[in-house]
Amino acid sequence: MALLLFTDFGASDLYLGQVELVLDRYAPGVRVVHLCNEAPAFDVRASAHLLAALVRYVPRGHVLIAVVDPGVGTERNAVVLRADGRWLVGPDNGLLSIVAARSATRQVWRVVSFPAGLSASFHGRDLFASVAAAVATDDFPNDTVRETDGLAVRLADEDLARVIYLDHYGNAMTGLRAESADRALDLRVNDAVFRHARVFGEVPPEAAFWYENSLGLVEVAVSGASAVERLGLRVGDAVEWVREHPRATLA
Amino acid sequence: MALLLFTDFGASDLYLGQVELVLDRYAPGVRVVHLCNEAPAFDVRASAHLLAALVRYVPRGHVLIAVVDPGVGTERNAVVLRADGRWLVGPDNGLLSIVAARSATRQVWRVVSFPAGLSASFHGRDLFASVAAAVATDDFPNDTVRETDGLAVRLADEDLARVIYLDHYGNAMTGLRAESADRALDLRVNDAVFRHARVFGEVPPEAAFWYENSLGLVEVAVSGASAVERLGLRVGDAVEWVREHPRATLA
Amino acid sequence: MALLLFTDFGASDLYLGQVELVLDRYAPGVRVVHLCNEAPAFDVRASAHLLAALVRYVPRGHVLIAVVDPGVGTERNAVVLRADGRWLVGPDNGLLSIVAARSATRQVWRVVSFPAGLSASFHGRDLFASVAAAVATDDFPNDTVRETDGLAVRLADEDLARVIYLDHYGNAMTGLRAESADRALDLRVNDAVFRHARVFGEVPPEAAFWYENSLGLVEVAVSGASAVERLGLRVGDAVEWVREHPRATLA
Repeated sequence: MALLLFTDFGASDLYLGQVELVLDRYAPGVRVVHLCNEAPAFDVRASAHLLAALVRYVPRGHVLIAVVDPGVGTERNAVVLRADGRWLVGPDNGLLSIVAARSATRQVWRVVSFPAGLSASFHGRDLFASVAAAVATDDFPNDTVRETDGLAVRLADEDLARVIYLDHYGNAMTGLRAESADRALDLRVNDAVFRHARVFGEVPPEAAFWYENSLGLVEVAVSGASAVERLGLRVGDAVEWVREHPRATLA
Repeated sequence: MALLLFTDFGASDLYLGQVELVLDRYAPGVRVVHLCNEAPAFDVRASAHLLAALVRYVPRGHVLIAVVDPGVGTERNAVVLRADGRWLVGPDNGLLSIVAARSATRQVWRVVSFPAGLSASFHGRDLFASVAAAVATDDFPNDTVRETDGLAVRLADEDLARVIYLDHYGNAMTGLRAESADRALDLRVNDAVFRHARVFGEVPPEAAFWYENSLGLVEVAVSGASAVERLGLRVGDAVEWVREHPRATLA
Repeated sequence: MALLLFTDFGASDLYLGQVELVLDRYAPGVRVVHLCNEAPAFDVRASAHLLAALVRYVPRGHVLIAVVDPGVGTERNAVVLRADGRWLVGPDNGLLSIVAARSATRQVWRVVSFPAGLSASFHGRDLFASVAAAVATDDFPNDTVRETDGLAVRLADEDLARVIYLDHYGNAMTGLRAESADRALDLRVNDAVFRHARVFGEVPPEAAFWYENSLGLVEVAVSGASAVERLGLRVGDAVEWVREHPRATLA
C-alpha cells in the first residue's frame, strides 16, 4: 500500500515536501507516489475528470490524497471516500464526485475534528496528510470522522467535452473517454480539426490527430510538435465531434 | 529520520537524482524528501530567509542538505550546523546563518577533509550528500570535520523586505514574518498596493491582497490569477508597508 | 539496488507516478530514483549521449529504465542491456547504444512476450516498468525474454558536437567529453564564442565561458545569467572548436 498525491500544488514548488514530512511522521516507511501534482489549478471540474481517469490505474488498497481546493479556508467539508476498494482523502467540493459516481461501491466519512494549528491556506499539509496517514496505518475510522450518506457536492457525471490537461510534449487531454468514441469522427478544438490515428508513428510529421491516450481519454496532438503551442490550446477549451474529413480517403 | 533537500538544483533537472544515488549508497533505506529545489538561484540572502521559514516545519532529528552556492569551487567552507535539534549541511556562505541566528541552541563543524574526485561545480553530489549521509547514519562527528566556534559568514538577521519566492500559482512570498505584521497596513510592491485578507475565498476575483501564508510569511496574491504575471513581480523586488486604503471601508 | 528512471516523460507530468505504481507492485520496497526525466523529447541521439554521460555516475547493480521512444506503438524491439554490471531497460532504437559501445562487457536480451493490455503509447508504464521490476527482484532472465547478439540499432559512437541538454540555470551541455578537450581552444555555438574557465567563481559577471561540467562534458555558460536565454541556445545546435581569443591574454 502506498500514499498517492493528486494535487494542484505544483510538481516543482515547495509544498509537496511539507506534505511528505507529515506523511513520514504519521505513516513512516510507507511509500509516497506523486501521481499528479499539476492538476489544473483552481479548476475542480477538469481536475475531477482527470482524477477519475487516473484512478483506474491505481490498484485497490492505495490511499490517494486528492486536493484541488480553491475554497480552502472557507466553508466546505473534508472527506474520506472509499470507492471500489481505493481510498481518497480530500475536500468535498466536487473533486471526488466523478470517481464516486463511476464506482460500484462507495462509503464516505466527513472530518468532524480538526488538528490544532490548522493554517488557512494549506490543508493538504495540515489536515489531509494526517487523515490519509491514519487510513494508511489502519487507524481508521477514528473519532475525528463520522460516516455520512455521501458527498455533499456532486458534479455532472457525463464526459466533459473540454480540454482538461496539457502535457509537456504539448498534447492536450480531453474529458472524453475514448472507449465509446467513433473513430470515423473528427474532433474540433477551437479552429482546429483532428482526425483519428492510432499512434504517432502512423501519421506524417506536423499532422494534427486525435487518439486514445494511455489513460483511455481522447487526446489531441501534432506529430513531432506541440499542439498546445501551435494551436494555442488551453485547459477549459471546448471540444466537439464533427464529420469533416472525407471518409473515402481513410483506410 | 529523513534526509531533506533544500537547493537551487531545480526540481526538474538531472542533478537531484545524482545526489540521491549518493544518499542511497551511504544511507540506504533512509527516506529522501524534496523540501524545496527551486530556491532562488544564486541568491543566498533570499534563500536563507526562505530556508529559515521552512525549517520551522521540519521536525527535530531530520538532516537537511541546504545548497545555494554560487561560489562553489572557490574558497568557502563546508559546514554542518546543529540548530535546535535539526541538522543542516551546506556551504558556509550565509545560507544557514538566519536559521542559526534564530535558534536557541547551535553547534557548528567545519569539513576539513574532502572526498577524492570532488568536482569543481557539484559539491551537492560530491561532498554534502556524503556528509549528510554520515550524520543520518550516526557516523558523526567523524574525522572529516572539526568543531568550530560558529558560522564564518552571517547575514543580517532582520526580516527581509523583499520578494523571496514565486510559486506556480503566481503568488509572491516575502521575507517578512507575518506574526508581527499590522493587518491594518497595506503592502506596496513596485507600483501595486496589497490590502490584507485572511484567505482567497474572502476577496472578490481579481483583487490584489496580502495574507499570512502557510509558512508564516507575508505573501501577496491576486485572487484567481497570477500576481507574478499581472504585476511583473520578481525575486528581489523590494516591498514596503504603507497606509493607503481608507480604513473606514474595511469591515 | 535501486530502480532509476531516465526518460523524456517530463519531471512535472502525470506519467512518472503511473510508472512508479507498477514498480511498487512488482518490486515493492525498492527505492526509485529519478535520474533525469527531461531528456530531450523525441531526440534519441542527444538523449543517448546524455545517458552515456550519466551512467558513469550510476553504481553497478542498479537497474535503469531508459525511455526516449518516438516510435512507441510501431515496430521496434524492447531490450534489456547489461553493461559493465549495470542494467538498462528500454527500446532498441539507439538510445542504449552509446552506453553499450563504451562498455567493456555487455549482454542483451530481447523481449519476446508482452503483457496483456499494452497501450499504444505508454510502454514505460505497460512494459518497461514490469521488465525492470523483474530484473530488480532477480526474476531475470525469465521466459519473456530471449538473449540476442546485441542491439539492433547502433548510433555512431563518437562524441556529439551538439547541444544535448539545457538546464534550469540556463547552461547548455554538449555531447563532447571534456577529458580530451584542449583548454586552449574556444567553443563556438551559433554566433557566440566561449573561452575556457574552470569554475563560475573565476570569471567576471556576464562572461561567456565553457568548462568541464560535473558529468565530464563540455558545457557553456554565462556567469550570473542564462546562456540559453542570452544566446537563444537550443538542443541540437551544432558546436565547434575554434581558436579565436588571443592566448597571450590568458593567465
